[in-house]
Amino acid sequence: ASAIKPLVPSNMKLDWVKRTDLCGELGGDDIGKRVRLCGWVALHRIHGGLTFLNLRDHSGIVQITTLPDQYPDAYTIANKVRIEYVIAVEGVVRARPIESLNKNMKTGTIEVAAENIQVLNSVRGQLPFLITTADDIKENATEEIRLRYRSLDLRRQQMQSNLMLRHTVVKTIRRYLEDVHGFVEIETPILSRSTPEGARDYLVPSRVQPGTFYALPQSPQLFKQMLMVSGFDRYYQMARCFRDEDLRADRQPEFTQLDMEMAFTPLEDMLELNENLMRHVFREILGVELPNPFPRLTYAEAMDRYGSDRPDLRFNMELKDVGDIIKGSGFKVFTDALKKEEIVKAVCVPSGAEKYSNTALKKGNIYSEALLSGAKGLPFLKVLSNGEVEGIPALVSGLGVKNTELLLKIFSAKSGDLILFAVGHHTSVNKTLDRLRTFAANDLDLVNHSFHSILWVTDFPMFEWNSSEERLEAIHHPFTAPNPDDMGDLPTARALAYDMVYNGVEVGGGSLRTYKRDVQKKVLEIIGVSSEQAEEKFGYLLESLDLGAPPHGGIAFGLDRLVMLLAGANSIRDVIAFPKTTTAQCALTRSPSNVAPQQLKDLSLSIVK
Amino acid sequence: ASAIKPLVPSNMKLDWVKRTDLCGELGGDDIGKRVRLCGWVALHRIHGGLTFLNLRDHSGIVQITTLPDQYPDAYTIANKVRIEYVIAVEGVVRARPIESLNKNMKTGTIEVAAENIQVLNSVRGQLPFLITTADDIKENATEEIRLRYRSLDLRRQQMQSNLMLRHTVVKTIRRYLEDVHGFVEIETPILSRSTPEGARDYLVPSRVQPGTFYALPQSPQLFKQMLMVSGFDRYYQMARCFRDEDLRADRQPEFTQLDMEMAFTPLEDMLELNENLMRHVFREILGVELPNPFPRLTYAEAMDRYGSDRPDLRFNMELKDVGDIIKGSGFKVFTDALKKEEIVKAVCVPSGAEKYSNTALKKGNIYSEALLSGAKGLPFLKVLSNGEVEGIPALVSGLGVKNTELLLKIFSAKSGDLILFAVGHHTSVNKTLDRLRTFAANDLDLVNHSFHSILWVTDFPMFEWNSSEERLEAIHHPFTAPNPDDMGDLPTARALAYDMVYNGVEVGGGSLRTYKRDVQKKVLEIIGVSSEQAEEKFGYLLESLDLGAPPHGGIAFGLDRLVMLLAGANSIRDVIAFPKTTTAQCALTRSPSNVAPQQLKDLSLSIVK
Repeated sequence: ASAIKPLVPSNMKLDWVKRTDLCGELGGDDIGKRVRLCGWVALHRIHGGLTFLNLRDHSGIVQITTLPDQYPDAYTIANKVRIEYVIAVEGVVRARPIESLNKNMKTGTIEVAAENIQVLNSVRGQLPFLITTADDIKENATEEIRLRYRSLDLRRQQMQSNLMLRHTVVKTIRRYLEDVHGFVEIETPILSRSTPEGARDYLVPSRVQPGTFYALPQSPQLFKQMLMVSGFDRYYQMARCFRDEDLRADRQPEFTQLDMEMAFTPLEDMLELNENLMRHVFREILGVELPNPFPRLTYAEAMDRYGSDRPDLRFNMELKDVGDIIKGSGFKVFTDALKKEEIVKAVCVPSGAEKYSNTALKKGNIYSEALLSGAKGLPFLKVLSNGEVEGIPALVSGLGVKNTELLLKIFSAKSGDLILFAVGHHTSVNKTLDRLRTFAANDLDLVNHSFHSILWVTDFPMFEWNSSEERLEAIHHPFTAPNPDDMGDLPTARALAYDMVYNGVEVGGGSLRTYKRDVQKKVLEIIGVSSEQAEEKFGYLLESLDLGAPPHGGIAFGLDRLVMLLAGANSIRDVIAFPKTTTAQCALTRSPSNVAPQQLKDLSLSIVK
Repeated sequence: ASAIKPLVPSNMKLDWVKRTDLCGELGGDDIGKRVRLCGWVALHRIHGGLTFLNLRDHSGIVQITTLPDQYPDAYTIANKVRIEYVIAVEGVVRARPIESLNKNMKTGTIEVAAENIQVLNSVRGQLPFLITTADDIKENATEEIRLRYRSLDLRRQQMQSNLMLRHTVVKTIRRYLEDVHGFVEIETPILSRSTPEGARDYLVPSRVQPGTFYALPQSPQLFKQMLMVSGFDRYYQMARCFRDEDLRADRQPEFTQLDMEMAFTPLEDMLELNENLMRHVFREILGVELPNPFPRLTYAEAMDRYGSDRPDLRFNMELKDVGDIIKGSGFKVFTDALKKEEIVKAVCVPSGAEKYSNTALKKGNIYSEALLSGAKGLPFLKVLSNGEVEGIPALVSGLGVKNTELLLKIFSAKSGDLILFAVGHHTSVNKTLDRLRTFAANDLDLVNHSFHSILWVTDFPMFEWNSSEERLEAIHHPFTAPNPDDMGDLPTARALAYDMVYNGVEVGGGSLRTYKRDVQKKVLEIIGVSSEQAEEKFGYLLESLDLGAPPHGGIAFGLDRLVMLLAGANSIRDVIAFPKTTTAQCALTRSPSNVAPQQLKDLSLSIVK
């Protein structure tokens, strides 16, 4: 290093200025204090011959004023800086003149009179979009542009508060689990092994052993079970998970789950602990008191009453099986179906008859919803003011007075309500009516937004029929324990599985696990996994069940989704710092990208064109 | 579900018993209390006609006794169970008879008289090794076997306490950073983009865009810098990082680093905050008070005095340049070297002359160390009781009385000490003497194990010459800022970089970053990265420097290594739940593994044989 400092042009000058205070933390108590602040120019305006800046850092905003006569240099620089320049300001805090007090601003009673302003860094070129305080960015920039210039986008108040909320949620969860329940955080591998659901695994080629691959975990399931076998009574992790799916709007190829597992914990205690956790989170984050205990629905009840295993109970509109009522109606579409052991269910939309014209019901959005759900049409009845119904003539006439009364009675239907029907196999009927119920409730603003609908769905079946592969498959995953009461007929057994559903969204799900090898073997047999395949894929788990495996179970919460709901954000991409687009790309870094031929050669791989 | 419960054989019976207490938490206050405990059979012994079990859960161990006359069923089962069976025990806590009090056991004053014992799970076959309380596992099982049966290995007291310590360290760090310094935890992507050091990247093929790849991050460096540009003042993350290196004994392909970055923070504040963090951790975890402030060495000083940029100061033995003393010695090996502008340095090993025979110094381990370091030989002088020296005759005679005196004086060498020399280019001389210094100190037990040597090494050069690639390369990474005082001659500039060194191990390292595009461009030019390459690889970072980038800097600590040192473990594999072997394999899951041909086809890849 030379003794004489060289002259360095400003674009090459690096400097780390020590600040004394944060912008947003200044207040009346600081009047008269000399401060040095660092931050971004958030606003630049000339008023009455004076130049004012708003200076922003992570803590908030403070007004900087200039004194052209006393500090002409600071004044000159203040006039030259532009929005989003990074500057250091030295000056004295003073009270604002009464006429410029700003009640809408936390620091609105004071300002800093600049004696010295230093430009730490400038903005080159035009900003791709402006950082506005309001959440009106969407009008200015597409999401692609926002993701492309993420370091600018994240400066927006909305994104700052989303990511701060995420941090607070995680902190709140960690401390509750650690301090109240003695959970231990343990990291499990990311470079892992391809699992039974291997088709959706991301693979990582090994250079050391050419032709072999690691897989990124879809969840730490088997590792956390082995931690239970290892005697770590209560484990948790904010676990990064990966799934190579054809992307849907609100899925990410990598996501974070709050992953938990507990040994020696019966179902009731498992549910209670997780309810307590969520009550704590909602109380701390939103100030909302969730019910105690959470309502519960069995899978069968949920499907029966709402056509869905994640019903949104912020609105009622329960589905009813109307087979008994309409079986004598003579309406051929329905009566033929009933003869084929199909079912007819219906949902009543309050004031739906007033809101939806006949044209809408035959051509509009609600009709499209029915078709998109797989239904062939949308049979409906409108309830008239005289207690009669209007709709498909054959159905109206076939029902007769008594059955019409009965129909209206089971729905407590009033004048102006609308009854929508679905017919067919129970799966498709439920699918259609779930979709119509949700669509109509949102469309007609029947959702009680001040209500927090949280509930458990329990008693899922262990298996469901996969008609394309012609085999039973596990509804949760093959390590879920069957209900001990149902061991006599395992293929139809209920699982000791549970989902937590918030406002119609599954936020968490888990199960007690099979901890005996013989049961595990039977379950694998049922879903068509041979002993050889089982040994090959997860022999290590089976083996560990023979080493003294305790009864255990667990749960995983989708953290991104939970934070999105708590933040009231529209997309999980708005609660992730650097998300991928819906085509699994990073708009910022442009990954995935091409790699050097040498890199592929090192991995003994070639690309098949 | 059928109304009548089927009879289920015990190997198919699943049961979740609710426990009332934890084994290790019972004590004198619980005498008379009825408890239900769950855990593993840790010991099984028959004594005086009675059967005793030790029952272990994560909290500790309690003795179970049996009452054959009163509770014959429990007695029968107690006799049948074997080590590591999982059982539930119901019974009453009672005081032990005086003769069986056990002061070495936390629960040694009480026992539980079993009224009911239920086997929850058995052990099938022979255990691959026993869970001993002492850390004598190494005699019983190789590390490969331990990793293969990790769920058993992790039950060992030593591994339980290592992973619990890791949890506590992480918790302590998190809370300190969050509560004392307002750091925000933000997650950065794992599916990332290949970086400048791409050669060691793990790649992840994209299915959606065939022929392209994500890369797993070697560190979140660029993302955390962009978070600073985004205005998140203080970021931290326990970040999983990946490096596909040819493995050394104590490296893992995936590792965890405490990753931090701060905006608007000068060097002194950066070092102070990190010192405070480490003082807090050492105080909380070990009860050790580290010095305040930490000692500092510049890179130049460290190399000069210890031949290493991570010197272990638990022993002295500073290196000295002895060129001036030996230049007139006439010892040709040395004098010829000095004429070629090479150097001669030496280290004095206290009592080394007494401990190492001439044979050892010419053939033994210490001689091998010299050769392994690249030296051609090991010139030495032994200090005799009469103040004379013995060794290479030409050197002894050439030095003469005066220079010998001078030599002994600069080392304060006493009778019985040993002076070891190295000659050549300063890099190789330092390498040799660093190695000899460390070897001798450990070999001769000169290390003060009660002392905690922690220090900063600062002022690293920005660049070093890579002779194989014939170019300058960045010593830290290309985003490190040069010292502003050295901007006049960037290629020889010092970097604003700092390493934290504990007991001779680098535990953390970081730097202030270049936050102006023009400086960054110059740095990239110097290391031979063209504008096109820079744009292609990390154009997004350069771009973000133009959007209002604040001065910032950060650090990363190797968490695995830090925990290993705090736990006094011998290997990082002993502080990681599921580590890879030194050949980057998982002995438990047998990953990496072959994958189905369809998986490769989906990725448009083929394996080159």
